[in-house]
Amino acid sequence: MIERYLEDYEVGQRYGSGVARVEAGRMTSFAAEFDPQPFHLSEAAAASTIFAGLAASGWLTAAITMRLMVEGDLKPAGGIVGLGFDEFRWPKPVRAGDELRVESEILEVRPSRSRPDQGLIKVRNTTSNQKGDAVQVTLGNLLVRRRRPAG
Amino acid sequence: MIERYLEDYEVGQRYGSGVARVEAGRMTSFAAEFDPQPFHLSEAAAASTIFAGLAASGWLTAAITMRLMVEGDLKPAGGIVGLGFDEFRWPKPVRAGDELRVESEILEVRPSRSRPDQGLIKVRNTTSNQKGDAVQVTLGNLLVRRRRPAG
Repeated sequence: MIERYLEDYEVGQRYGSGVARVEAGRMTSFAAEFDPQPFHLSEAAAASTIFAGLAASGWLTAAITMRLMVEGDLKPAGGIVGLGFDEFRWPKPVRAGDELRVESEILEVRPSRSRPDQGLIKVRNTTSNQKGDAVQVTLGNLLVRRRRPAG
Repeated sequence: MIERYLEDYEVGQRYGSGVARVEAGRMTSFAAEFDPQPFHLSEAAAASTIFAGLAASGWLTAAITMRLMVEGDLKPAGGIVGLGFDEFRWPKPVRAGDELRVESEILEVRPSRSRPDQGLIKVRNTTSNQKGDAVQVTLGNLLVRRRRPAG
């Protein structure tokens, strides 16, 4: 399996993912457990809401995006360890049957000041549906190992 | 049930939540579905990772935080509709058995320029464990209805 280290990442690189279909049943069961609001729970309850129809919880979109990234092409050695995001948006709702994919673009690569064996990459992750509309855009900071400690 | 409108929110207000216990079994089943990385899947696999033991996927923490907020005291009319976050961090890992709660502080309240019937509130949501350590901190922007449309 390919594993990438800090030295392998360069600004401007783009990494893709597979595709995940968002099933209506998983949308509503996820919402029942974590985000029990009418617009996420059933078509009938969602019809008269701001979403005008059933929409996935943004946290399901985030979770599916994570799965796509873990199985995608980014592949940092030691795993995808996120410190957090500088920006996180859901520009459009996710609907039942949508097919999502993620593209990650490297925006910044920098060695850690305090840890000679690791560094940080800043990545823009764009989750898109089958029409090419962005449904989630994040600017994330990931911890990445160095192949050779800074000396 | 209390429902709050844009006119009810003021900078500096704080709203609390109940408590949610994070079960080891739910940590690992969530990870198997959405974030299958060794540090989220089992104690044994996690021992030698950067987390030095099983840690919850950040997306489970985010999803539990959402549930606490939906059932918490913030209660915007029409539901919690997030546009996204200006900042999103996980300062400490969440461990099995942790008991999480959320506090939301209102940082900004502003009417929409384009929609007379709604506005935006900016909220800092701090999810803390039973020791009082922050495990997730977000700066979120929520859509909120106005009680009376701007004239």
